[in-house]
Amino acid sequence: MTMSDKSRKPFNCPLPISDYPSILVAHGGGGKLMHQLLEKMILPTFSSSFKNNCHDSAVFEIAGTRLAFTTDSYVVRPIQFPGGDIGTLAINGTVNDLAMSGARPLYLSAGLIIEEGFPMETLWQILQSMKQAADTARVKLITGDTKVVDKGKGDGIYINSSGIGIIEHSLNIEPRSVVAGDAVLVNGDLGRHGIAIMAAREGLSIQTRIESDCAPLWNSVLALLSAELEIHCLRDLTRGGLASALVEIAETANLHIEIEEAKLPVREDVRGACEILGLDPVYVANEGRFAIFLPEAQVSRAMDILSNAFPDLAPARVGSVYGANRSAVTVKSTLGVARILDMFSGEQLPRIC
Amino acid sequence: MTMSDKSRKPFNCPLPISDYPSILVAHGGGGKLMHQLLEKMILPTFSSSFKNNCHDSAVFEIAGTRLAFTTDSYVVRPIQFPGGDIGTLAINGTVNDLAMSGARPLYLSAGLIIEEGFPMETLWQILQSMKQAADTARVKLITGDTKVVDKGKGDGIYINSSGIGIIEHSLNIEPRSVVAGDAVLVNGDLGRHGIAIMAAREGLSIQTRIESDCAPLWNSVLALLSAELEIHCLRDLTRGGLASALVEIAETANLHIEIEEAKLPVREDVRGACEILGLDPVYVANEGRFAIFLPEAQVSRAMDILSNAFPDLAPARVGSVYGANRSAVTVKSTLGVARILDMFSGEQLPRIC
Repeated sequence: MTMSDKSRKPFNCPLPISDYPSILVAHGGGGKLMHQLLEKMILPTFSSSFKNNCHDSAVFEIAGTRLAFTTDSYVVRPIQFPGGDIGTLAINGTVNDLAMSGARPLYLSAGLIIEEGFPMETLWQILQSMKQAADTARVKLITGDTKVVDKGKGDGIYINSSGIGIIEHSLNIEPRSVVAGDAVLVNGDLGRHGIAIMAAREGLSIQTRIESDCAPLWNSVLALLSAELEIHCLRDLTRGGLASALVEIAETANLHIEIEEAKLPVREDVRGACEILGLDPVYVANEGRFAIFLPEAQVSRAMDILSNAFPDLAPARVGSVYGANRSAVTVKSTLGVARILDMFSGEQLPRIC
Repeated sequence: MTMSDKSRKPFNCPLPISDYPSILVAHGGGGKLMHQLLEKMILPTFSSSFKNNCHDSAVFEIAGTRLAFTTDSYVVRPIQFPGGDIGTLAINGTVNDLAMSGARPLYLSAGLIIEEGFPMETLWQILQSMKQAADTARVKLITGDTKVVDKGKGDGIYINSSGIGIIEHSLNIEPRSVVAGDAVLVNGDLGRHGIAIMAAREGLSIQTRIESDCAPLWNSVLALLSAELEIHCLRDLTRGGLASALVEIAETANLHIEIEEAKLPVREDVRGACEILGLDPVYVANEGRFAIFLPEAQVSRAMDILSNAFPDLAPARVGSVYGANRSAVTVKSTLGVARILDMFSGEQLPRIC
């Protein structure tokens, strides 16, 4: 394992150094630049059989049982915001990555990177949030690590949370399972997490207090699975929002997804805040919302299940999948005009999660 | 999962705020302060059944198969050092945490927190190191995450790596399995990683180039397990070195461990560097060394296995476990005088891993 300077390979970084000689904030934003970094630099590091499988969780088999494994680091600012804090987010975010593979979340890890001088009281509050969120999601936090970095070399606290879940059905819930004829549903109204963070960050005084939608999603997924619906794909709508999730899935499945603007559930206060901030709700991050791809014929059953189980959330059928010879996402406006929905090149909201 | 300011519990942080109102660098040093933070703040967050089980890996069962799960964040400075870099360390460190539970390392995750402005070329080198280390250790890197933080809010790059391993034997390899009558072995000479880092950090010109001992340990563990030795405990000698590892085990097992100073394998150049730097080799971090606890009667077989498999490493039997009514670690000097070995209150070398 030793690696002397001499044996180090000459530089042949796959991202042209003339384009991006160093990391930009946008490389972490869930948009185009991040996908370029991922495709060209990071995925080649991965085990080859998992390169197409690493969006939400990687799935592997042990003793005939399928398990899902995922990791996420949380760097959200501010660390405490209406509706949660970085601890709540670290647990729910990882729980949700497992749920999006159709895996029941079982065990989580917590890796803390704390900056020297961080208030002990705030650390305790964050740890309590993690415990509370883990209890609510019925996952066990079973292993952890703490590192302290010198003052000025961090930003209070960063949390990594990795998770293991078990797949108890025979579906392959992944972008490649999406087919023409599928409908696209979302489990509730969009944009609350992003707006809550922006409002807290910018000190905006929005009349209605908008809280993050941060919540564990396994119960929703379980309700759909228990009804034996033929779920093709699930995707949580975090960094980059609904738009980035759909673009990624359309590209992977090589299909055309069309959504209808009028059907997107967005609360009035969230829409108002988006207008003030110049944001499009389809790009705003959520932490308790996901898209569901399933056959057209099962839409009404799925809608009933979501509406009954979570009446406050306003689930909606927002679009359809077509077998056009192009991978694209289009939005049909209320006037019937369709425009192409693209990933942001950078990002709308840095450090949203 | 929402948590309004009102519902937030009043502050009752278990670490008296008068003692430590904020995080010190020493809280991450592997010494007493870190253990206090762990015991009083972090472990209460964990699932109760795993509180005593989280030193190296947590062990759980799926479909009758025992699996190990571990996480570690790497914040080492400098990020490139003689014998490796933060990428090598991130893979080997996590591989070794699994190996110390007697688990064959299978799958790893990588969570990158990169500071804006980090050179793309260096990122590529680190990713290549990770790939190379994963291939050498025969583990698969299967899931990952990338976050970018603004300039001045990080320190180049931090890496979290979590890992899953499988336990293919029936031993319970953990501190509580240590008994009086056990011998303590180490698999090789001590202190190289710490000295390599210090030399790189301080620009010391030590005559011999000392490279980090950073290496995967699963093959060594497998060699011992395959010989059906009755291994009671394994512990890698990272942050805090041999001393902190033994103190922790002595406390958990409530036993007395005595080591003999003359038997500690330390290379001459490492000893010389330790003298210049005012360091005691028993506290210096290693990244490819571990302690083995097993019955006295099996010492010579274990030594033969280690010597044959890894002839360059100078394995050594360094001490014994006694059933005294105290948990303590003592060192017998060459003059026969015994002194108590304690954990450092803070740490010798911040950000060694």
